[in-house]
Amino acid sequence: MNKASLINEIKSKKSFLCIGLDTDIQRIPKHLLATEDPIFEFNKAIIEATSAYCVAYKPNIAFYESLGSKGWDSLKKTMDLIPPHIFTIADAKRGDIGNTSALYARAFFDKASSGFNFDSVTVAPYMGSDSVTPFLTYENKWVILLALTSNEGANDFQFIENTNGEPLYKKVIETSQKWADAERIMYVVGATRPEFFAEIRKYSPDHFYLVPGVGAQGGSLQEVCKYGLNKDVGLLINSSRNIIYASSGTDFAEAAATEALKIQTEMAEILDQKY
Amino acid sequence: MNKASLINEIKSKKSFLCIGLDTDIQRIPKHLLATEDPIFEFNKAIIEATSAYCVAYKPNIAFYESLGSKGWDSLKKTMDLIPPHIFTIADAKRGDIGNTSALYARAFFDKASSGFNFDSVTVAPYMGSDSVTPFLTYENKWVILLALTSNEGANDFQFIENTNGEPLYKKVIETSQKWADAERIMYVVGATRPEFFAEIRKYSPDHFYLVPGVGAQGGSLQEVCKYGLNKDVGLLINSSRNIIYASSGTDFAEAAATEALKIQTEMAEILDQKY
Repeated sequence: MNKASLINEIKSKKSFLCIGLDTDIQRIPKHLLATEDPIFEFNKAIIEATSAYCVAYKPNIAFYESLGSKGWDSLKKTMDLIPPHIFTIADAKRGDIGNTSALYARAFFDKASSGFNFDSVTVAPYMGSDSVTPFLTYENKWVILLALTSNEGANDFQFIENTNGEPLYKKVIETSQKWADAERIMYVVGATRPEFFAEIRKYSPDHFYLVPGVGAQGGSLQEVCKYGLNKDVGLLINSSRNIIYASSGTDFAEAAATEALKIQTEMAEILDQKY
Repeated sequence: MNKASLINEIKSKKSFLCIGLDTDIQRIPKHLLATEDPIFEFNKAIIEATSAYCVAYKPNIAFYESLGSKGWDSLKKTMDLIPPHIFTIADAKRGDIGNTSALYARAFFDKASSGFNFDSVTVAPYMGSDSVTPFLTYENKWVILLALTSNEGANDFQFIENTNGEPLYKKVIETSQKWADAERIMYVVGATRPEFFAEIRKYSPDHFYLVPGVGAQGGSLQEVCKYGLNKDVGLLINSSRNIIYASSGTDFAEAAATEALKIQTEMAEILDQKY
């Protein structure tokens, strides 16, 4: 999906909500465990109930991978039923030397090889350019590069300042702009640090940010929007557990829809005020 | 596997060779493509031919993942036939927030969940402590943390110096020693930069290093050993393509054994001189 199509979807739905499919066999409603593929049945119900309110789905690959090849089968069936106008993110945080990253790109982008045709994949920057660029050779596919993450461990390395006083996350954003522009790269910027959005916007004014950490991790939608919105909206706000585990009963999909609608309504108000 | 068992294996085999199972459907001998599971048949032959000369196998997970769930099945069958006294490394370069890394740990360490029981997994440090520590809760399992990698992109971020003149890869090694000791963490240190081994040994004298980049990527075994060996040997030198693709004919396994034996013989000479 290209940037213009994503922006169109955001404007027509008045939503920049991404729903994280962190589907955990230990947390889904018990009645689903009797079905042949409980992970898929859960995802199917969640997607059918929420697809009107979100513009992206983000399966967290670890949850599927933890179940071995069976998990990958559930993921494939899930991806096949997401409508094509909804942006898809393989939250995989991959990254390796060039020839290996090319294989990871095949894993998520090359349907003929792996069965998957995601629009984007999250990538870790530590290994630098050749770990990222192989993902950029696929037309209309995106790299979503980790910049400033929402977890506590972000403090260990991402804030280390170089001799010019620039933190590592800033160098990641600046350096990666040599590899591709805002039509092909987004950044992960955690909602738990809304005060940083204003600063990061200075050197990546046109980029989309994938923003985890609203809700369960404590970040505020209003604060993130205040500093993070740009002329194209430029934000995909992710919510996972708050939505998909809103109820553990047979009404889980309905409860997820209610939560998603609540966030979408708040987003619509923000968009109406701003644009 | 604990450190003492790994050292025993190294001493009894006079080898610190790790063979990388970067098994690419596009590169394996053509006659295998007629079999039901060519990836597995290739690995099986390679393992049977080389297991006397190496102490570790390192499947590069991208190669399997690029084939979807079928690739994961081939990997599982491969892992089930590696003898238990040989150290196994899931070269996956994972790393995510705490609850997600716990799922990646399940994917590689928890046989009941995923079917896999690797001894270790490679982890990317960018997201810090909580992205690494969930892997450390499994007894006798290891994290192999990226420090100084062998690829060109390593220059983008790993050498950025903080205000004390310390490069990022050094901070990764120093900070991670607060999370676990040399019985549970190893580091990836690329062979293409042998001059750095002497320096890195100063602040991680007891750790094992997983060393890619000998052979195909140009690093020298002699140079790495000169600076990198410690009292316990402390090196696992990986070779992938040079060994497994030594021949593209029906003699591929025999050719791989010849290559592996050649490296093991060189290693035995180094060990005999040093210990």
